[in-house]
Amino acid sequence: MTSRKPALAVVGATGAAGAVMLQILSQRADVWGEIRLLSSGPPAPSARGGGPSPHPADRGLAVRGAWTEVLPLGEDTLRGVDVAVFLAPEEVAARWAPIAAAQGAVVVDASPAFRADPDVPLVVPEVNPHAARIRPRGIVAGPGCTTLAMIVAVGALHAEFGLDELVVSAYQAASDAGQAGIAALRGQLAAVAGTELGTAPGDVRRALGDDGAEPFAAPLALNVVPWSGTPQDGGWSSEELRVRAETRRILDLPGLRVTATCVRVPVVTTHSVAVHARFERPVTVARAHEILATSPGVVLYDDPAAGDFPTPADVVGTDPTWVGRVRRGLDDERVLEFFACGDNLRKGAALNTAQIAESVAAELAAARAAPS
Amino acid sequence: MTSRKPALAVVGATGAAGAVMLQILSQRADVWGEIRLLSSGPPAPSARGGGPSPHPADRGLAVRGAWTEVLPLGEDTLRGVDVAVFLAPEEVAARWAPIAAAQGAVVVDASPAFRADPDVPLVVPEVNPHAARIRPRGIVAGPGCTTLAMIVAVGALHAEFGLDELVVSAYQAASDAGQAGIAALRGQLAAVAGTELGTAPGDVRRALGDDGAEPFAAPLALNVVPWSGTPQDGGWSSEELRVRAETRRILDLPGLRVTATCVRVPVVTTHSVAVHARFERPVTVARAHEILATSPGVVLYDDPAAGDFPTPADVVGTDPTWVGRVRRGLDDERVLEFFACGDNLRKGAALNTAQIAESVAAELAAARAAPS
Repeated sequence: MTSRKPALAVVGATGAAGAVMLQILSQRADVWGEIRLLSSGPPAPSARGGGPSPHPADRGLAVRGAWTEVLPLGEDTLRGVDVAVFLAPEEVAARWAPIAAAQGAVVVDASPAFRADPDVPLVVPEVNPHAARIRPRGIVAGPGCTTLAMIVAVGALHAEFGLDELVVSAYQAASDAGQAGIAALRGQLAAVAGTELGTAPGDVRRALGDDGAEPFAAPLALNVVPWSGTPQDGGWSSEELRVRAETRRILDLPGLRVTATCVRVPVVTTHSVAVHARFERPVTVARAHEILATSPGVVLYDDPAAGDFPTPADVVGTDPTWVGRVRRGLDDERVLEFFACGDNLRKGAALNTAQIAESVAAELAAARAAPS
Repeated sequence: MTSRKPALAVVGATGAAGAVMLQILSQRADVWGEIRLLSSGPPAPSARGGGPSPHPADRGLAVRGAWTEVLPLGEDTLRGVDVAVFLAPEEVAARWAPIAAAQGAVVVDASPAFRADPDVPLVVPEVNPHAARIRPRGIVAGPGCTTLAMIVAVGALHAEFGLDELVVSAYQAASDAGQAGIAALRGQLAAVAGTELGTAPGDVRRALGDDGAEPFAAPLALNVVPWSGTPQDGGWSSEELRVRAETRRILDLPGLRVTATCVRVPVVTTHSVAVHARFERPVTVARAHEILATSPGVVLYDDPAAGDFPTPADVVGTDPTWVGRVRRGLDDERVLEFFACGDNLRKGAALNTAQIAESVAAELAAARAAPS
């Protein structure tokens, strides 16, 4: 029995979500002993013309007010940690998460690598917290940021009305593509500001040049791009199929009808979703408002006549899912429409990961405190 | 019997849609005799900080290559025209369209003023052309630009599969709010370009100042705004209810289930819509592709693996509805998803109006040519 606080490794500390994780670790109740920062490779190259990396100090970062060395990811640097959070690319997580688990750490992975693995629970602490305790591989996954932009609100409404069908249109921010995405959007906006572009077919594309859209599938400034992820069967994108699969797993509704359309918009950070939800039982806006106003992790902000509705530029940097524009279907009393915004780097990645990690830390502490 | 070409009045010639109408009149087959340009008031004030008006010559404009005086809208200036197209604010159309009709002109109105009037047909020439011939008040209306971004494609699919339900999420461009909207977006983008804004709650709002969002309901640069139009019962916006009412009228499906969410995005011109359509009969992507590829007014552009999908910056300035991202619902073989883009000033306003006006001109010419 010991009162030692658990040791945490942050894999991917130098990325966009990693930077937010370091903020969160400095802001939330400090449950951790050692915090070890690990990087899976050299600092990501900034996008073409995107300016210098926002992390000029590639060998150390501040966390909990202290300069902390960034170590290379490896078997030795993963040794001796109790919890390892992965905010790293999918291929890094796929390779290193099992190694960390084999060395005794509980892994919390924000990447898609294990989200479909039946032996890896997919967890959103406000919705299915207990799922995190059953982890045959020693790995817990969090869903993607598009699912996380709406699932806390959807889960609360499902508990009351019983979800039957979900149609989701996403308005995805650039930082979903990491620091390179942020730099690319800023570079593109600088190139189009003060011009008359956006009025002739392809003029933005020509102004940005051949590779000017990267890492996006088309220019993002003065535009929206109805594609993110990789091509899948039937014309679907991987992002769209993930929203369906993740929602089904988290709500434990394997037959739920879900369709998603993922569209990138020129917003730095914070995803938005227009949600059309059909329930098993009739809904009212008044009762939906009560549920949303009292659900942990949700802020109801819904009075359009007074200008009160969530927008990504107002929500960015905050923790909750903000919900507004709640309406009941005019042709179906079981349909509820709403618009939700959630910071894709906070709740959409780092915060959800931190919440899961904290619940694991509490579980480990309780296990140590129990008489053996 | 005469071969005189009909005289056309363009009301609202100095606005954003009016400017596009003058381009269209110069580009399309010339069916018109006199073209009279009318303005309903002084040039619209440019938005705060939005720079000079794009129409510095407020007393004359070029149409069909000739400088044409802009006359004030009035009973005398409406006299003697055969067709009067209104690309003017709703209140201007509500007042002056009946006056033009009483003086013998057939009015084609792009505003919302008469769209719900059962004695005014609501017409999209590719979908319900014959409706324009029955016009008890001498007025024909066109639908709004959000409906027009998808209705030609939806109508073609409905003819084959039988439409049962429509869920629409719109990505609306700034020019829907006229020249003031364009100027405001450009001013906002100039203010945020080269900054690190968009990463802290409300930072864009604070940088733009108290009235910096106008004419939008919230800042549009680095943001999306889930509100356009005026507040209606049940939390709906007027824009959203219009999509429902217009779609039902044009397709002659008064009981059709339609829900829309209208969101403004930082795009100059061209609306996009993510459409979830449920039909009465099973659909296939292959058959939907065939229909869309052969429908007048539609361009199918759908090969995401090759980077082929429509975006507003590529579609702006073109006439058709561009359709891509066609997928069949994974949980319902009657569901088709697609993404469509349409220039809100061309097909969404001026072009649809010009097409209706041309059909009226042909009808008038045929009536004149017929033996009396």
